[in-house]
Amino acid sequence: MDTIALTEYLFIRLRQLGLDTIHGVPGDYNLSALDFIEPLGLRWAGNSNELNASYAADGYARVKGIGALVTTSGVGELSAINGIAGAYAERSPVVHIVGTPPVEIQASGMCLHHTFGDGNFRRFAQMAEHVVVAHANLTTVETSAEEVDRVLTMCKLHSRPVYIELPTNMVKAQVSRARLEEVIPPADTCVLNREIVETTSQAILTRLYAAQQPMLLLDGFVSRYNARAEAQELARALGIPTYSTAFGRSVLEEPLPNFHGVYSGPTGNSKLHAWAQSCDLVLTLGPLFSDSNTFGFTTKPDPKVSIAIHREHVELPGSDPNRSETIHGVSMNQLLRSILNLLDTAQLLSVQHPAIAGQDVPLQIPSYDEPLKQQTLWDFLSQHLLPGDIVLADTGTSSIGSSTMVLPPLCTYITSPIWLSIGFALPATAGAAAAKRDLVLTGQASRGRTIVFEGDGSFQMTAQSVSDMIRARLDVIIIVLNNQGYTVERWIHGMKAHYNDIMPWRYLQTADYFGAVQDDSYPILTQRASNWRELAQALQAPQVVKGKGLTIVELLLEESDAPLPLQQMAGAAAKRFCT
Amino acid sequence: MDTIALTEYLFIRLRQLGLDTIHGVPGDYNLSALDFIEPLGLRWAGNSNELNASYAADGYARVKGIGALVTTSGVGELSAINGIAGAYAERSPVVHIVGTPPVEIQASGMCLHHTFGDGNFRRFAQMAEHVVVAHANLTTVETSAEEVDRVLTMCKLHSRPVYIELPTNMVKAQVSRARLEEVIPPADTCVLNREIVETTSQAILTRLYAAQQPMLLLDGFVSRYNARAEAQELARALGIPTYSTAFGRSVLEEPLPNFHGVYSGPTGNSKLHAWAQSCDLVLTLGPLFSDSNTFGFTTKPDPKVSIAIHREHVELPGSDPNRSETIHGVSMNQLLRSILNLLDTAQLLSVQHPAIAGQDVPLQIPSYDEPLKQQTLWDFLSQHLLPGDIVLADTGTSSIGSSTMVLPPLCTYITSPIWLSIGFALPATAGAAAAKRDLVLTGQASRGRTIVFEGDGSFQMTAQSVSDMIRARLDVIIIVLNNQGYTVERWIHGMKAHYNDIMPWRYLQTADYFGAVQDDSYPILTQRASNWRELAQALQAPQVVKGKGLTIVELLLEESDAPLPLQQMAGAAAKRFCT
Repeated sequence: MDTIALTEYLFIRLRQLGLDTIHGVPGDYNLSALDFIEPLGLRWAGNSNELNASYAADGYARVKGIGALVTTSGVGELSAINGIAGAYAERSPVVHIVGTPPVEIQASGMCLHHTFGDGNFRRFAQMAEHVVVAHANLTTVETSAEEVDRVLTMCKLHSRPVYIELPTNMVKAQVSRARLEEVIPPADTCVLNREIVETTSQAILTRLYAAQQPMLLLDGFVSRYNARAEAQELARALGIPTYSTAFGRSVLEEPLPNFHGVYSGPTGNSKLHAWAQSCDLVLTLGPLFSDSNTFGFTTKPDPKVSIAIHREHVELPGSDPNRSETIHGVSMNQLLRSILNLLDTAQLLSVQHPAIAGQDVPLQIPSYDEPLKQQTLWDFLSQHLLPGDIVLADTGTSSIGSSTMVLPPLCTYITSPIWLSIGFALPATAGAAAAKRDLVLTGQASRGRTIVFEGDGSFQMTAQSVSDMIRARLDVIIIVLNNQGYTVERWIHGMKAHYNDIMPWRYLQTADYFGAVQDDSYPILTQRASNWRELAQALQAPQVVKGKGLTIVELLLEESDAPLPLQQMAGAAAKRFCT
Repeated sequence: MDTIALTEYLFIRLRQLGLDTIHGVPGDYNLSALDFIEPLGLRWAGNSNELNASYAADGYARVKGIGALVTTSGVGELSAINGIAGAYAERSPVVHIVGTPPVEIQASGMCLHHTFGDGNFRRFAQMAEHVVVAHANLTTVETSAEEVDRVLTMCKLHSRPVYIELPTNMVKAQVSRARLEEVIPPADTCVLNREIVETTSQAILTRLYAAQQPMLLLDGFVSRYNARAEAQELARALGIPTYSTAFGRSVLEEPLPNFHGVYSGPTGNSKLHAWAQSCDLVLTLGPLFSDSNTFGFTTKPDPKVSIAIHREHVELPGSDPNRSETIHGVSMNQLLRSILNLLDTAQLLSVQHPAIAGQDVPLQIPSYDEPLKQQTLWDFLSQHLLPGDIVLADTGTSSIGSSTMVLPPLCTYITSPIWLSIGFALPATAGAAAAKRDLVLTGQASRGRTIVFEGDGSFQMTAQSVSDMIRARLDVIIIVLNNQGYTVERWIHGMKAHYNDIMPWRYLQTADYFGAVQDDSYPILTQRASNWRELAQALQAPQVVKGKGLTIVELLLEESDAPLPLQQMAGAAAKRFCT
């Protein structure tokens, strides 16, 4: 057979890029495409709704480097669009495949369901254009395979979502099988210009050699640009004090003696902040200088001492001290490799190594019978993390509280550094756990735990994703922080306002409600903790230590109890947005 | 005080248009706006997520003529956009208020959370433009009140969603209080052109007088265009055989002897279909000729005999029999009033009145101990409806099964005639029940029941809305059709495919899981029915008859059991979309 069905072609391409599980929801315009999934050995997640499917595909992509979901035209895709937008903002390579009506019916302007009845079938793609880096409408046999390759290349290249319209009449269209032999080119955004790369490397090295108090700051986009190995090697080779943002905390693949944790500005270790502020060089890799990823811009380096290496450009201090200079056309990967080649470590000054940890409060638990408190909670929880854990935190007390937690080696930490859509983390956990399972099943990783810290308000947004976890029998530990409402919002505005209240769900019934059946191979454990003893017991349960099955631990917390950094950041947000 | 805060102005305007409850979810950029809700005597629904908020605002609008939700920029609004799109497609007047960052911060291009970090704050409005009929960005004090009035006028005029950006720095901006005295003009889309209206009326009357077998077909947009009274009067005055579409079935405010129910084409009463096909005139009011509202285009009248009165234009048979003629610039309301003025009933031919009901199978239940079957279910359920009930049906077996149910007088029937986003009906029920409650509290309606027929797959999409119902203590009866998956999709394609399966939730635990507390003033009843006896018992329970509190009845149905019309329509859909 020289030809292959277009849908099969698309799915095989996704497999080649590392995908084993497809997320999504069936609908009238995608059913026949779904027939191709299982025969190819791919898994169908079958999510409860499309928003959860998109979040899950994003979580999957953050672990496995590619994620995909299938929805149906109009209703399905628009329910997913907020998740796609988050993947766009945070550079997660998600492929959104939308089943659409047949090309001829679209051309006829038929008054079809899942449309506005105006004969215009282009609006949804026009909406999607804002949140994707490439778009293909597979309307003709001649170009479809090429179009698939083009958008998948863009997806990997920019590490951002792409949008594929698959009309039902094209599902089985026959395309060339031979084309599958051509490997989709590996991702690099810039054509290599050796001269610019080397000149820029030398300029950076000159500054590094002269620096008396340099700092290396690792941010999360390093992982998205597949530059973790180079970043690791650079941090090791330079040996200078290295910190990360919250988003960048799991950039390093192996522990390093000169890596000291998260730099969290004045909300964290005050000595560290003073030191960082007096650095004469801050080299940032893969930065995202959003308010939420810089602790309210407090950790964003002064442009006068800042070198920031982005995906396709570099920012350096300019000759005019009030201006920075931007060099375009240099990719991070090219630059890091070049710097490593040219680096002469003998020329680095011997710098005083402050070795100040991201945190300065040692763990002190007054008494095991005392109620849980946010200020101690995150250190306490960190003591129960294990090497290799995938840790997710939803926006709010969970993300800010966990932002400076000490992570054991080889952990993956996933949080939202700029989109901050509450409810993201729970479905993203389903996606991350599916990715972990797929890595284990294909021998690319050893078994490990997937843990999510989830606020109650966030949980209620996307609770159905627990049903998706049970359906796929995913190993997940869910820590629900029950503080009776939107505590982060309370701290910003309306501490006692009704609009910050939520319904008191019975979180421990979650697994049972969503149809879980107790089973040795998929055990269910639910536990409530109101004090440190109960929390310790829950976290030390054998199932939890092994990370097997589904565990839900509900933490009872005071409504207004929040980590100190959150209180400080909320105060700044209140001044900015609520006066 | 000559001035008033802009947010207060906006909310008072909404009150003037009939709004008592605002839906939505708090977020960083809308908190200070929410402070204005309760002091004005408005209610805050506080939905669990934004999609449910938008569906609920839509359901509220379909009952009360106006609905509103407040979300936060980016993450919140995009989660709601599918619901707004449905309101746009089905002409529901929903006001979407989005709290946005301060004008100056937007202008500065700051790298803020809930954005893409590219300094572009306009994208979300650009996405929204596709699904709203007007948009205002309230950036300046001078024009804001006028802008609010403009978009609210458009909302009512076109009965479609509008989008309002409210930057946080404008929340308390002072605008003129006096302007509130000016009434927002009543909705009519066309400037009255008496000559065109009368000429068109005469043309329609000429055809009506000549018709030997005329039919009046009422469709759902009549309600959206506030033309129910005129439609009622016309149907009464003409006295000709009158039917409705499923969407239009509750257009009539009072029963009429010449109204015989829903015309459902060849899937329904075959005698009726034959009669309808041989009519020499079909006058349709407020048509939506989508595949889903015309039983696969089978009830769409032949253009040769069709007069269709739309919002702002009329379609008539042309002089060339193969073309229809369109007259623009005539609104439905103007035209119906004019036809009623000019009508001389003496000139109508005495037509044979077929009086064929929409259904032809009398209710026959073999034995009360037999399992529930779709083919009988809807007739059986219809026997337990009461005058004044608000009845909602989600897309799938529920919408198609209930589409020809006989409704008692004064019922309101809400279903989705073209958007067909599964999961819509449950939150829309929360909105409709809130509207009913508000009508009762303001003395505009007597107490009554709100009942929803909800498939299990649909239920799982938006289950959190039951939490919203409990929070607001809304009186709702939820009939969950548990048939273990997407049965409508099974009939289209993949009868046994895994992708059409869903998790077996424990639906009777819903109220308990979402935090309901048994209480005399808000009783909770949950019941399962697998046969006719159990179903009858459930529907005859005093709480259900009164419609007080929250009732959930789970119907156990065979996976592949579907109403006959659904089977037929699914076959047509399969041919069109799955070959």
